[in-house]
Amino acid sequence: MSAFDELLAFQRQTEALSSIAERLGWDQETVMPRGATEQRAEEMAAIEAVLHERRTDPRLGEWLDAATPEDAEDQRIVELITRDFQRASRIPARLATELARITSLAQGVWAEARANDDPTTFLPVLHDVLALKREEAAALADGGDLYDALLDDYEPGATGAQIAALFDAMRPRLVALREDVLGAAFQPRPLAGHFPQETQLRLARTCATAFGYDWSRGRLDLAVHPFSSGQWQDSRITTRVVETDPFNCIYSTIHEVGHSSYELGIDDDHAFTPIGRGVSMGVHESQSRIYENQMGRGRAFTGWLFQRMSDAFDGIDLKDADEFHAAVNRVTPGFIRTEADEIQYNLHIMLRFDLERDLVSGRLDVDDLVEAWNTRFQQDFGVAVDRPANGMLQDVHWAVGLFGYFPTYALGNVYSGCLHQALCRAVPDLDQSLALGDAGPAVEWLRENLHRHGGLYPPRQLIEQASGGEISEKPLLDYLEAKFGEIYRL
Amino acid sequence: MSAFDELLAFQRQTEALSSIAERLGWDQETVMPRGATEQRAEEMAAIEAVLHERRTDPRLGEWLDAATPEDAEDQRIVELITRDFQRASRIPARLATELARITSLAQGVWAEARANDDPTTFLPVLHDVLALKREEAAALADGGDLYDALLDDYEPGATGAQIAALFDAMRPRLVALREDVLGAAFQPRPLAGHFPQETQLRLARTCATAFGYDWSRGRLDLAVHPFSSGQWQDSRITTRVVETDPFNCIYSTIHEVGHSSYELGIDDDHAFTPIGRGVSMGVHESQSRIYENQMGRGRAFTGWLFQRMSDAFDGIDLKDADEFHAAVNRVTPGFIRTEADEIQYNLHIMLRFDLERDLVSGRLDVDDLVEAWNTRFQQDFGVAVDRPANGMLQDVHWAVGLFGYFPTYALGNVYSGCLHQALCRAVPDLDQSLALGDAGPAVEWLRENLHRHGGLYPPRQLIEQASGGEISEKPLLDYLEAKFGEIYRL
Repeated sequence: MSAFDELLAFQRQTEALSSIAERLGWDQETVMPRGATEQRAEEMAAIEAVLHERRTDPRLGEWLDAATPEDAEDQRIVELITRDFQRASRIPARLATELARITSLAQGVWAEARANDDPTTFLPVLHDVLALKREEAAALADGGDLYDALLDDYEPGATGAQIAALFDAMRPRLVALREDVLGAAFQPRPLAGHFPQETQLRLARTCATAFGYDWSRGRLDLAVHPFSSGQWQDSRITTRVVETDPFNCIYSTIHEVGHSSYELGIDDDHAFTPIGRGVSMGVHESQSRIYENQMGRGRAFTGWLFQRMSDAFDGIDLKDADEFHAAVNRVTPGFIRTEADEIQYNLHIMLRFDLERDLVSGRLDVDDLVEAWNTRFQQDFGVAVDRPANGMLQDVHWAVGLFGYFPTYALGNVYSGCLHQALCRAVPDLDQSLALGDAGPAVEWLRENLHRHGGLYPPRQLIEQASGGEISEKPLLDYLEAKFGEIYRL
Repeated sequence: MSAFDELLAFQRQTEALSSIAERLGWDQETVMPRGATEQRAEEMAAIEAVLHERRTDPRLGEWLDAATPEDAEDQRIVELITRDFQRASRIPARLATELARITSLAQGVWAEARANDDPTTFLPVLHDVLALKREEAAALADGGDLYDALLDDYEPGATGAQIAALFDAMRPRLVALREDVLGAAFQPRPLAGHFPQETQLRLARTCATAFGYDWSRGRLDLAVHPFSSGQWQDSRITTRVVETDPFNCIYSTIHEVGHSSYELGIDDDHAFTPIGRGVSMGVHESQSRIYENQMGRGRAFTGWLFQRMSDAFDGIDLKDADEFHAAVNRVTPGFIRTEADEIQYNLHIMLRFDLERDLVSGRLDVDDLVEAWNTRFQQDFGVAVDRPANGMLQDVHWAVGLFGYFPTYALGNVYSGCLHQALCRAVPDLDQSLALGDAGPAVEWLRENLHRHGGLYPPRQLIEQASGGEISEKPLLDYLEAKFGEIYRL
């Protein structure tokens, strides 16, 4: 066997083991008996230890040195394994262990602090998490920017400066649009009523099918926080049910179908290689968002959904498809990121991005975080945060050390804007299909132009290839202004 | 860390990884999307490779040599790790790989042969499986008996000669009882009707609860071949539903609750150590059988079940609890082991035990197996096998290399006879509880006297301790003769 073949065979097993760890995570969030937490923690620790050992195995270095890739694809594989090997090798075992320990602890402390609406117990732990993450960043950055080193884990190749420039260009138009919409004379009626769980789940399945979800390689289950899990032949989705708000279940489902479609659409040849998974969080989010928002919340699809929901619930309290479409896209002031509409969502992200960049660089101290959050929120949203649970305590990300993760959500929205523009050009009768509850032509286009490549191209290159132009915030903002201008009769 | 502590820490991770592999197996049989088989095969191969490497890790030998266990429990742990290490080390990697490959292949060939009712394609593959198993046995036996070496994997310490003597003592009384019962003037009416799946599953859950199943550490799902899976804080059960035969679902469930109760009843201290699992297949089967048969099919519990079923199905076609009890325990001639009643089941096992012993020793050739099976079946059951699918093609065990496994089923029955005798003495009002649908006192007694010890004592010692006497076939046979004598009015 050549060094490259040995490398690939070793990596294949690592990918399979990593896939097992992901499946265990799915099990834990969906079907695991509630009394099994300790056991599962020990199982996860055991497989993570095996994975860590493999990712830092000195033989990787030898094979990488000796490997002579024959084409661009093999070259990319070597590049990705090299990146992971270097990242893993730069982090001392002691730091990795300590980070695992403290973030696991911090997650519990955070949950309690949020429940008690009191940051005082959480801030000292967050201080420790941040200190370790800064240490990790320093080890990874090798003299470069700390934040970029962390960001690179979620959006390879992206930099904080690049994202800051993008967000700076977006903010004024989003803030203005938000004000116009909230101040508009016309305000949509929300959907009211009681919507039984079983019917919601049946509808959610129908929607997943409409978006081309392959049930022979997936399934739908309930989870507290919806997620998708897995790749290749087994990518499962989850959703949640709120019986007063069926949109929660339906749009969570469509969102997760977007993630799973990406994974299931990757060429079989790439399975269990480093290019056999979605290439970045931003690209992943672009898929979940374009399914959920541009398509799922568009007028064409909501027209079809209005009929399905009216039938399923034996009539709903909205008079026609237009009123339904407005209800689906209703904008209201709110503190919580995960409940935000398409406009405000990005503002929530920008706030977090600026704060976490300052935390990582050392410009902002954890002790000043609550105040910094509240000041910034007042500035962008025009409202004072009423309590910490509605402010900096609302997200788990920082507690578990995910600094650098947040911007990928908004980046995904920007990517989805670019892709949607190209998709509409390439598939002119897209809306006709969506109006019949069939996203098939869009899914086909996305598969052909994006999904199938997996990790073959770096994120920006992939999006630019697929959308046929430079990445820009403009398509997203144009789309938002047009869409909400129409709904709110601006 | 002492050598013993290092050994224990290493073993703990191995146990956790092994538990993960078992959980993946559960996933595959219950919830996995049907299109994920290739991926799962690769995942299983990856984790099995990790497990094999750990089980033959040379450091184990060093730690075992240096370990100084401080008490009997630690001594037992060292003994069990030594046994596994020696077994794993004696099997050459080439043989292990080849066995994994051929048994995986043979399983498919067997399934097709059974479906086509034609052994000709299967016999050559079985020939290869047997040759490899004989090679494995020779490596393990180290000059000793080949069959004993294989048996030891499932029932440590048992020998073929010992089991042959036990079975020889049982056969005449079982054959006589079988003849008496089938020739009796009174023959019970079977339960007829249609029993919807949802109601069956609800009843199955009620029965699992009656037998003390801990739902916070388990769950019930459907599977083609019911099984239980897992230990410590997570032992899940499965069942199947035949809408014309509710006893299938109910008694499969109670059977699997028996297996899971054993695992869930082991002292927490033993978790993820070599004594943290059931000690042998025979002891495991004794638990599933005493739950299913001596308790579940006893007159007291069936009296309660008659009421529950009558309520659940809005009346059933049997007039009273006595007729119901007779229907539950109805004996009919049949070719299939898994459908057999308490009497004939053991005869099915004895047939397989004698044949597989002859196969492993070389006294019987695979080419003569069909004829040997049919001759023996005629002899013990008084009926000619009508077709291979009802004869030697009915079980998967030999195809997947499980030579030495069959006798543990009947051994479990013998153990359950001994335990039941002791249980009835220790808990005189057992039937009163069972008549109220509560096996709690029995479960408590079994937990205290058997379950909690896990693998701390060798199988025979454990059963003898718990039942307070020598292991003998007599309690089982006395119980069967009394029970069926009464039902069949002999």
